[in-house]
Amino acid sequence: MKKLRIALAQINSTVGYLSGNAKKICSYIKKAKMLKADIVVFPELAITGYPPEDLLLKPQFIKENIDALHEIRAAAKDLSTIVGFVDRNQVIYNAAAVISNGKLVDVYHKRHLPNYGVFDEYRYFKPGKRFPVYNLGGIRIGVNICEDIWREKGPAKIQSLSGAEIIININASPYHEGKLSIRETLLSTRALECRAVIVYVNMVGGQDELVFDGGSLIINRDGNITGRGRQFREELIVADIDIKGPSQKVSDKNKKELKTLLQNDEYIENIKIPSTLKKGQKPAVRQKKFIRMSENEEVYNALLLGTKDYVFKNGFKKVVIGLSGGVDSALVTTIAADALGKENVHGLFMPSAYTSKESYNDAYRHANNLGIKIVTIPIDSIFKEYLKMFSKSFKGLKTDITEENLQARIRGNILMAFSNKFGWLVLTTGNKSEMSVGYATLYGDMAGGFAVIKDVPKTMVYELCKWRNKKEDRDLIPQRILWKEPTAELKPDQRDTDTLPPYPVLDPILKAYVEEDRSFEEILQMECDRECVQKVIKMIDHAEYKRRQAPPGIKITPRAFGKDRRFPITNRYKSY
Amino acid sequence: MKKLRIALAQINSTVGYLSGNAKKICSYIKKAKMLKADIVVFPELAITGYPPEDLLLKPQFIKENIDALHEIRAAAKDLSTIVGFVDRNQVIYNAAAVISNGKLVDVYHKRHLPNYGVFDEYRYFKPGKRFPVYNLGGIRIGVNICEDIWREKGPAKIQSLSGAEIIININASPYHEGKLSIRETLLSTRALECRAVIVYVNMVGGQDELVFDGGSLIINRDGNITGRGRQFREELIVADIDIKGPSQKVSDKNKKELKTLLQNDEYIENIKIPSTLKKGQKPAVRQKKFIRMSENEEVYNALLLGTKDYVFKNGFKKVVIGLSGGVDSALVTTIAADALGKENVHGLFMPSAYTSKESYNDAYRHANNLGIKIVTIPIDSIFKEYLKMFSKSFKGLKTDITEENLQARIRGNILMAFSNKFGWLVLTTGNKSEMSVGYATLYGDMAGGFAVIKDVPKTMVYELCKWRNKKEDRDLIPQRILWKEPTAELKPDQRDTDTLPPYPVLDPILKAYVEEDRSFEEILQMECDRECVQKVIKMIDHAEYKRRQAPPGIKITPRAFGKDRRFPITNRYKSY
Repeated sequence: MKKLRIALAQINSTVGYLSGNAKKICSYIKKAKMLKADIVVFPELAITGYPPEDLLLKPQFIKENIDALHEIRAAAKDLSTIVGFVDRNQVIYNAAAVISNGKLVDVYHKRHLPNYGVFDEYRYFKPGKRFPVYNLGGIRIGVNICEDIWREKGPAKIQSLSGAEIIININASPYHEGKLSIRETLLSTRALECRAVIVYVNMVGGQDELVFDGGSLIINRDGNITGRGRQFREELIVADIDIKGPSQKVSDKNKKELKTLLQNDEYIENIKIPSTLKKGQKPAVRQKKFIRMSENEEVYNALLLGTKDYVFKNGFKKVVIGLSGGVDSALVTTIAADALGKENVHGLFMPSAYTSKESYNDAYRHANNLGIKIVTIPIDSIFKEYLKMFSKSFKGLKTDITEENLQARIRGNILMAFSNKFGWLVLTTGNKSEMSVGYATLYGDMAGGFAVIKDVPKTMVYELCKWRNKKEDRDLIPQRILWKEPTAELKPDQRDTDTLPPYPVLDPILKAYVEEDRSFEEILQMECDRECVQKVIKMIDHAEYKRRQAPPGIKITPRAFGKDRRFPITNRYKSY
Repeated sequence: MKKLRIALAQINSTVGYLSGNAKKICSYIKKAKMLKADIVVFPELAITGYPPEDLLLKPQFIKENIDALHEIRAAAKDLSTIVGFVDRNQVIYNAAAVISNGKLVDVYHKRHLPNYGVFDEYRYFKPGKRFPVYNLGGIRIGVNICEDIWREKGPAKIQSLSGAEIIININASPYHEGKLSIRETLLSTRALECRAVIVYVNMVGGQDELVFDGGSLIINRDGNITGRGRQFREELIVADIDIKGPSQKVSDKNKKELKTLLQNDEYIENIKIPSTLKKGQKPAVRQKKFIRMSENEEVYNALLLGTKDYVFKNGFKKVVIGLSGGVDSALVTTIAADALGKENVHGLFMPSAYTSKESYNDAYRHANNLGIKIVTIPIDSIFKEYLKMFSKSFKGLKTDITEENLQARIRGNILMAFSNKFGWLVLTTGNKSEMSVGYATLYGDMAGGFAVIKDVPKTMVYELCKWRNKKEDRDLIPQRILWKEPTAELKPDQRDTDTLPPYPVLDPILKAYVEEDRSFEEILQMECDRECVQKVIKMIDHAEYKRRQAPPGIKITPRAFGKDRRFPITNRYKSY
């Protein structure tokens, strides 16, 4: 029985912040050494942050990322280190550096480059063609990167056939609802197939529309989870891993199987790493036990981390939110207060002639519950001044959507003026149901820097509010906000249902069309009102131009808008 | 000597408009038949339009595109037809259907999938692995698609080694300045290498940010251009091609070379197509001679076609533009009038206290020269009403960028109100220099549906205005607009140069950093003022959040903003 003490550094890198990320990596190496780890592992592209996007096209950036790697290498004495960076050799690779006692022993190149969903890795990288197994004091280790482990006959299988007892898989795997379960099932299957321990290290943190959720995992060769990193938190997980039996030479049977798997690629049996295994008895590390978050808790925490990192990583300290007394702005404000601290959240209440007394009361009551500042700026006199200016040009024409949008845009302007004057970031409050059908005003309620719940369907907005209230065991978000009928209050007696089907009908149609690419006939099988389905699809297709100008927001579903769903604006396709 | 009459159908497809595109294709087949063509060739993905983006993920869309192909097939009697569509066989392929006399003879799958710049083809397609040569009545033809011809040892070479005398290459190749020259050089080289005639058929038309410029080409085996389609115009080009000598069997030497080129791929020597060669003497087709456009003419026409197609394909008839009396709005208005007809262009002049008499005169004079309607809506009283509302919240604070932006946003609101009320599309007037450094107001002058000159640097804006004036031999755009100093007129005596270096200094820095990914040191070698370069780069990096919310606009440079340059907003990289 051999023992390996491994440290999983589930860190929060910032895209482009080469010096800062390197410094953070060095500090985690130091911590790992203090805890007597034999090896410390960092996430995919930990040095550059993920995804660096077109920064990768800048030769200067690539060079400086390699400089940063060598800084880290020099600091990584007395243990082994695996760290993600961009390797260069004419072309560039998504790579893992294998460092031992201050020396760069080898570099692994990611084989399987995701180019779907939010991923564009073929835009930048070439795939690797070489699958080494490292020998660290008699323990055989295969290293690979993210997507590599998702392939049944991929690098993990190749490395285990060539003798690897541990597979270290480094990741920058973005969160969506239910992703952790998918990962657990996959990794458990892979461990059993490979008869190897799998060490899965994930990045943590928000990057524009993505949230990396941490939740690193250690799976034993029987497919059971033996270690777990926290979700949505930076931390160093240290674990002692038992390796069964002595390492073996690659059998002839394995060689045969390798040959069919590899085609033009290459396996390498045994790259010796100068041993950094610590000698002698070490006090055992106490494995903390975490329980996976519930679904609502998970989503809420993703929104929280995504908001916090967007705001702070972009150099803002405070935010401002338009409070309407409705459920969307209530949820966004609650998230903001939880993420940034109540003292950093400003609410603006901007009533018009159509704003009800209830809205006022609900907005103020909620703001007071949260302990945030709230100010009222009425928009009516400005609105009237616009109408006066339009009186000649619009003479004889009926009041229509123009005047509704105008009110929303005045509010947008006011929020932006506060943003400009005080340096507060504007958080918008639109949800995914609205974004889908375009039930929102460009430059109005869509105006702002970050759209916190852009990917949260309206029905889930209610769920999250209820979950948050329950957590505190009080009506932090006033009950009336949760049961009153949704309204934009842009004309007398307006209700969302004047324009849209009720949300419990709408949301499943949206999911089927937007996230699952269901055909019109398939959708009709779940919602038989043909006219309703046609209308909804038409609205979704037509609203693409609005979404293109929307601020970024946090992906929490399997398919968000933004780079996750790339749709033409000019598009005459009709599926109905 | 064999003769082939070929028709190049350089058509303007609309993305997603399967029925409309199929109908257009059928009408061109009919025309080609009337002109006694032996074969008619359509662009890449002519049936779906290009690029269909995530429509390709919808199984219903793929099915209906194949239905459309079979409609076309049935109509394509008595000649051969090559047409681009999406083929499906578990996965999907960017494909060319080879139809002869109403029968689908074969399907070619694109081998080289571009996944750089504006292209995402690995997101959708699998690469082809099969390189057939078709035998049409003794004439051997290789068919391939777009990117395929850009590879020296790619499909064209393989097909010519296996006996092809003509290479038909179908395209949806987007325009940028100078692209046609690059294509001509490339195709000429390829023809010489392959000792084959190259028939290059390109799509034409605007699709969101892209303009396909047509300009189809016929190159003889000596590398000379013998036929040319018009730039930026839909048309059917008919040409008689002489094929030298009898077709030969593939030599052993070629077989050897093929083996090294092909690796896992397959060549196929001789797929017989039921001959559709027309018997007997045909009156010769008269080859029209076109001269390539000059650079300015090219760019101007790209902007014109891009604007026209965006407006009309999206169902608009009229546009509205904020006229400031400056050069940017002057150019956009001129393009709009040329593209849509003067009766479809509305100008709004929206003066504030800082607007000069000159601006008023210049805007009106230009509008009158164009013959477009212009209306004045002053913004000052609305501006004052906002300030009144802010007086308490902003008490004691200095006037700053807040008040400047507010004026721009009031103008944005007014334009959008006219858009909502009358159904006019708002064209924005920002140029690439402004977009680069963020010298523009979100929801202000950036508010609108289409950003015509978003990719045109300021120095080129002047060039284009001068070119347009010269073309008409009169000051369509008043001279003063061309020589007065640029100003946003958002505060007293404001000049662009208060904030930015002069445009002839700024534009080369922008090109080096944005389009060419030059390092800081390289840029310093061209512009030695270190502080100035630092400031400009900082502004570019910082403005990403604005660009993300900008309307789409026409790509005319090798690298535009939008999907051509994918940058993180959260980004702490500093190259300086």
